[in-house]
Amino acid sequence: MLFDSLPDRVTVYEVSPRDGLQNERATVPTAGKLRLILALLDAGLQRIEATSFVSPKWVPQLADAEELLAQLPQQAARFSALCPNVRGLARARQSGVSEIAVFISASEDHNRRNLNDSVDNTLARLREVVQEARASGIFVRGCISTLWGFRQVDDIDMTLALRIGHALRDMGCDELSLGDTMGIATPKRTRDVLLRFLDVCPGSALCMHMHDTRGTALANVLVGLELGLRGFDAAIGGLGGCPFAPGAAGNLATEDLVYMLHGMGIETGVSLDKLLAAGNVAAAVVGRALPGKVHAAGLRPSS
Amino acid sequence: MLFDSLPDRVTVYEVSPRDGLQNERATVPTAGKLRLILALLDAGLQRIEATSFVSPKWVPQLADAEELLAQLPQQAARFSALCPNVRGLARARQSGVSEIAVFISASEDHNRRNLNDSVDNTLARLREVVQEARASGIFVRGCISTLWGFRQVDDIDMTLALRIGHALRDMGCDELSLGDTMGIATPKRTRDVLLRFLDVCPGSALCMHMHDTRGTALANVLVGLELGLRGFDAAIGGLGGCPFAPGAAGNLATEDLVYMLHGMGIETGVSLDKLLAAGNVAAAVVGRALPGKVHAAGLRPSS
Repeated sequence: MLFDSLPDRVTVYEVSPRDGLQNERATVPTAGKLRLILALLDAGLQRIEATSFVSPKWVPQLADAEELLAQLPQQAARFSALCPNVRGLARARQSGVSEIAVFISASEDHNRRNLNDSVDNTLARLREVVQEARASGIFVRGCISTLWGFRQVDDIDMTLALRIGHALRDMGCDELSLGDTMGIATPKRTRDVLLRFLDVCPGSALCMHMHDTRGTALANVLVGLELGLRGFDAAIGGLGGCPFAPGAAGNLATEDLVYMLHGMGIETGVSLDKLLAAGNVAAAVVGRALPGKVHAAGLRPSS
Repeated sequence: MLFDSLPDRVTVYEVSPRDGLQNERATVPTAGKLRLILALLDAGLQRIEATSFVSPKWVPQLADAEELLAQLPQQAARFSALCPNVRGLARARQSGVSEIAVFISASEDHNRRNLNDSVDNTLARLREVVQEARASGIFVRGCISTLWGFRQVDDIDMTLALRIGHALRDMGCDELSLGDTMGIATPKRTRDVLLRFLDVCPGSALCMHMHDTRGTALANVLVGLELGLRGFDAAIGGLGGCPFAPGAAGNLATEDLVYMLHGMGIETGVSLDKLLAAGNVAAAVVGRALPGKVHAAGLRPSS
């Protein structure tokens, strides 16, 4: 029967400070980032992708990674930083982060566009990063993007995608985050993708990173819940949409995710009321309206 | 196993000309309504809630019901009109409609606010309408609103709600449409509500009318699909949100619904490309941006 094996609790993995803010046209000052992260912490989020050690040449919006991390209350949550290579990892270690994220695309085409390298070269580069990080006791998240398609729905070679998954696990990634970067996933395909990856590692080590570009994110999350996944990425207010296309939403909004989870009796450790307050901070920090639905509509009917 | 009993085909019930346009601040001219409906027909929609025979005093936006219906190609689809009472039904019959919709709230409170009468008085009034309509061979849809709550999530007396459902069926309603008017439904509660109503009538006679105010509409639809429902209400572009609160989306957008259904291999008889064109017509007709996600983002990744 539907929902007979729902979990009591899941982990919400907040990506807005990195995945959200790096997509903003204007760089948010460090003080604004700190204000956002403190609001997220206040709402009860315990895992936060805080920043990135990609070269400032490529992502100037996050050039203040060291400065930001130095100001964060490190005991309050597990902060993560994106590390594309050993140079990034060295910076991350100096900043004392206990978790990093590495990225690769399931699409050879997207990987070359996004990382300017082949999938195989990227895997070789990440192997160094992951092994070195693990040797230092750093938790590593392996993020696979465009798993549901890049230029078209389902234009992904699943054999390659699974090879990437196995390679990330073999090199030492503690968990995998499966990304629908283009926001094109629908539930039946999501079931198929997740079932394949449940052969790579247990559901407890798999997270979903869904975009809500076409309104299907929560339906896909529902499939993940039914299949035993227990970690879900989201961004406050749906931050991370392309700011040049305001209608086209990006990341699943944290408020929408938590609203659904709590409505299903699943605990997250997050306060929805405080999450809405954090959404207002996020909107103020980026200076624009955010696409998240609960963010816009509020928690309760106003009648 | 998840999705083992998905249907090959479902019915999309388009509500925008009535449920959408009556919520617009400015009355859309009859020619604009006709343009919208012709675009919806061109996209392949076969059931359309076209207008309402509520007194023009209450809903001036739809005062042109007769004029509009006279211009519709009656053979092209099944058009429906809302009829609140026998006076409305008389007008509907003169216009030659083959289907009507009647409305009642599962919330006594909402029913009094919306229809200015008690639930029991409303049932007595609808009994006359439905019996007379059925005697004339008119198909009748019984719509129950606020089933997931009115002022609060789940503040509905389910005993009363089921009594309403049984009464509507007993008086002759061919199908029931279950409405989350406030857009607050989450999937587990949806399962519970639908299971209760599946005792009232078979899934083939139950439709879902979900609002996407908090991003959960498609997740709820997924539950309905799993439980055997085969009819889903939606409005092009998500028309029907309160125009005074642009961020707070209303009806589930037809494009989003069909995008998910087609992605799951479920036929609707609708062309998604033409549906997107109809969404552009809808936006032009109401003169504002619409909240639907596929409407805003398009069908395919643009990379």
